[in-house]
Amino acid sequence: MQSLLEHLGVAVAAITGVLAARGKRVDLFGVLVLALVTAFGGGTIRDLALGERPVFWVRDSSFVVTAAATALVTFFIGRVRDLPRNVLLVADACALSFFATLGADKALGVHVAPHIAVAMGVVTGVAGGMCRDVLTGEIPLVFRREIYLYATAATIGAGCFVTLQHFLPDRGTNLLAGTLVTLALRLAGIRWRLALPEFEDPRRENSSEP
Amino acid sequence: MQSLLEHLGVAVAAITGVLAARGKRVDLFGVLVLALVTAFGGGTIRDLALGERPVFWVRDSSFVVTAAATALVTFFIGRVRDLPRNVLLVADACALSFFATLGADKALGVHVAPHIAVAMGVVTGVAGGMCRDVLTGEIPLVFRREIYLYATAATIGAGCFVTLQHFLPDRGTNLLAGTLVTLALRLAGIRWRLALPEFEDPRRENSSEP
Amino acid sequence: MQSLLEHLGVAVAAITGVLAARGKRVDLFGVLVLALVTAFGGGTIRDLALGERPVFWVRDSSFVVTAAATALVTFFIGRVRDLPRNVLLVADACALSFFATLGADKALGVHVAPHIAVAMGVVTGVAGGMCRDVLTGEIPLVFRREIYLYATAATIGAGCFVTLQHFLPDRGTNLLAGTLVTLALRLAGIRWRLALPEFEDPRRENSSEP
Repeated sequence: MQSLLEHLGVAVAAITGVLAARGKRVDLFGVLVLALVTAFGGGTIRDLALGERPVFWVRDSSFVVTAAATALVTFFIGRVRDLPRNVLLVADACALSFFATLGADKALGVHVAPHIAVAMGVVTGVAGGMCRDVLTGEIPLVFRREIYLYATAATIGAGCFVTLQHFLPDRGTNLLAGTLVTLALRLAGIRWRLALPEFEDPRRENSSEP
Repeated sequence: MQSLLEHLGVAVAAITGVLAARGKRVDLFGVLVLALVTAFGGGTIRDLALGERPVFWVRDSSFVVTAAATALVTFFIGRVRDLPRNVLLVADACALSFFATLGADKALGVHVAPHIAVAMGVVTGVAGGMCRDVLTGEIPLVFRREIYLYATAATIGAGCFVTLQHFLPDRGTNLLAGTLVTLALRLAGIRWRLALPEFEDPRRENSSEP
Repeated sequence: MQSLLEHLGVAVAAITGVLAARGKRVDLFGVLVLALVTAFGGGTIRDLALGERPVFWVRDSSFVVTAAATALVTFFIGRVRDLPRNVLLVADACALSFFATLGADKALGVHVAPHIAVAMGVVTGVAGGMCRDVLTGEIPLVFRREIYLYATAATIGAGCFVTLQHFLPDRGTNLLAGTLVTLALRLAGIRWRLALPEFEDPRRENSSEP
C-alpha cells in the first residue's frame, strides 16, 4: 500500500517535471532528466544529508522505471493534447503531502533531532521541484508567493507528524494525520490564495511601479 | 592505459568548462571552478548516488592537478588565440564515450540493477556539463536538439556495454565496444544532424512564429 | 570558542542569503531556504565529497536553529530598514576566512592530499554563496572580477594553513594564521579593488562596446 502510493507520487512528480519543459525548447532526453530530477531530487538530497547509502532509487530501482515510463507517456501525450491542469494540481498536492510526511518519518528512523526531521520532510517534498526549476533557468517556483502555501503546508504537516510521533505510538495514524494536515493546508492555500509575506527592498517599495 | 585515458578525458572536459566562460565576464577563479565542475561533476554525482566514499577525485587527487593545469593553460591560450573547434568536438565525443562506458562499469561493480548502471553511465558522461551550464545561467546544452545525439549516444553505448557484460566475460572488449558504439552514434549525430524530438506546447505550435 | 565563531559565521552567511532575495519577489520560505543554502552549502559539499556522514548540520542540529533564527530576524528587519552594508562586508570577510581555514583543517583530519585540503577549504568558504546565486538565477558572484579577491584570498589562506600544518605542530596558531592571511587579502582586495584577470573571447575584445 505505502509502496503503491510512493510509486504514484513519483509518477505525479515526473509529470510536473515534463510540464516544466514547455516552451523551453527541450528535447526528449531533457524531458526525461527533468522528470527524474523532479521525482528523485528531494529524496536524494535527504538520503545524502542523512548519510543513507546508496540513495533510495539505486536501492529500489523500480522507481526509475516508474518515473521514466510516466515521463515518456506524458511526453508523447503532451505533444498532441493538453493535460488537465486542475487534476494535476490536486495530484501534486497529494504527492507533496505524502512525501513530506514520509521524508520526516525516514529521518526520524535514523534518530536525528526533531527540527532536522521536519526539514528533511520539507526537503523531500520540495527540493526536486527546486532542482527542476534551476535546470530550466527559473527561480524556484516554491520561493514565490503565487504558489500558495506549498512549502509552508509541508513544514506544518511534517511538524505535526514529528510531534505526534513523540507522543503517540501508532506510526500509521501519525503518517495519515501529517499527510492530511499538509493536504488540507495546500488545498486551502490554492482555494483562498493564501501566501507568505514577500521580502521587499524598502527602496523598491518607495519607488514601486505605477 | 585506462588511467591515461581517464586523465585525457578529464582534461578535455576541463577545456569545455573553460570555453563555457566565454562572454560571461568570468574571472580566472570562475574559469577554474567551471573546469573542475565540468570534469568532476558527473563522476561525483555517480559516486554520491552509489554511496562510494570519498568521491573519486578525493581518493585519486592527481585528477584535480590534471584538470586545474589544463584549465590554466587553456585560460591563458584562450586569451590570445582561438581554440580549434572541430578538434575539441571530436575530443569531447571521445571523452563522453569513454566516461559513459566507464561509469556504467563502475556502477556494475557495486551490483546495482542493469538500468541503474546505464543511468550511471549517462550521468558520468553528461552531468558535469549540465552543472557547468547551470553555473553559467544556461539551460543545459544536453537538453537541446542542437547538440545532436549526445545523451542518446551515451545511453545506447552504456546500454550495449551493460548487455555485453551480462553475456560475455571479457570486460576489456566490452568496454571498447560500448565506447565505440557511443562514439559512432555521437559522430554520426554531428555529421548528419540527427536529433531527438522536442517537447512543444500544442498551443505554441498553433501560433508558431512566421 | 571555536563553536561560538562557527555559529557567528553561519549567522553572517545566513544574512547574505537573505539579502540575495532582494528584488527577486521571493517569499519568506524562499528567504529561509536561501539563508540555509548559503550557510550550509559549502560545508555540505565538503562533507559529501569527503564521505563524512551525516553532514555537519544533521550531526549538530543547533546550526539550523542559528541560521533559521538569523534569517527570520533579518527578514523582518530588512522589510522596514536598510542593513549596514559595510559592516556586513567585513563580517562576511571574517566568516569566509574562518570557514576556509576550518574546512581545510577538517579535510586534513581525514588524511586527504594537501591540494585537496586547500580545495575543500575554498569549497567550504565559497560554495554556499554559489548555490545561493544559482537559486536566484545569477551567475555566481564569486566568478566575477568585481568581488575582489574572494576565492583567491580563501585559496591562499587555506594554502598557508595546510603548509603550516605540515611544518609546525600547533594547530591553533596555524588556524589563526590561515584565517588572518585570508582576511588581510580579502580586505586588501576590497580596499584597493584588486582582482583576477577575466577570460575574454578574443573576438569580443576586437568588437568591444564603445
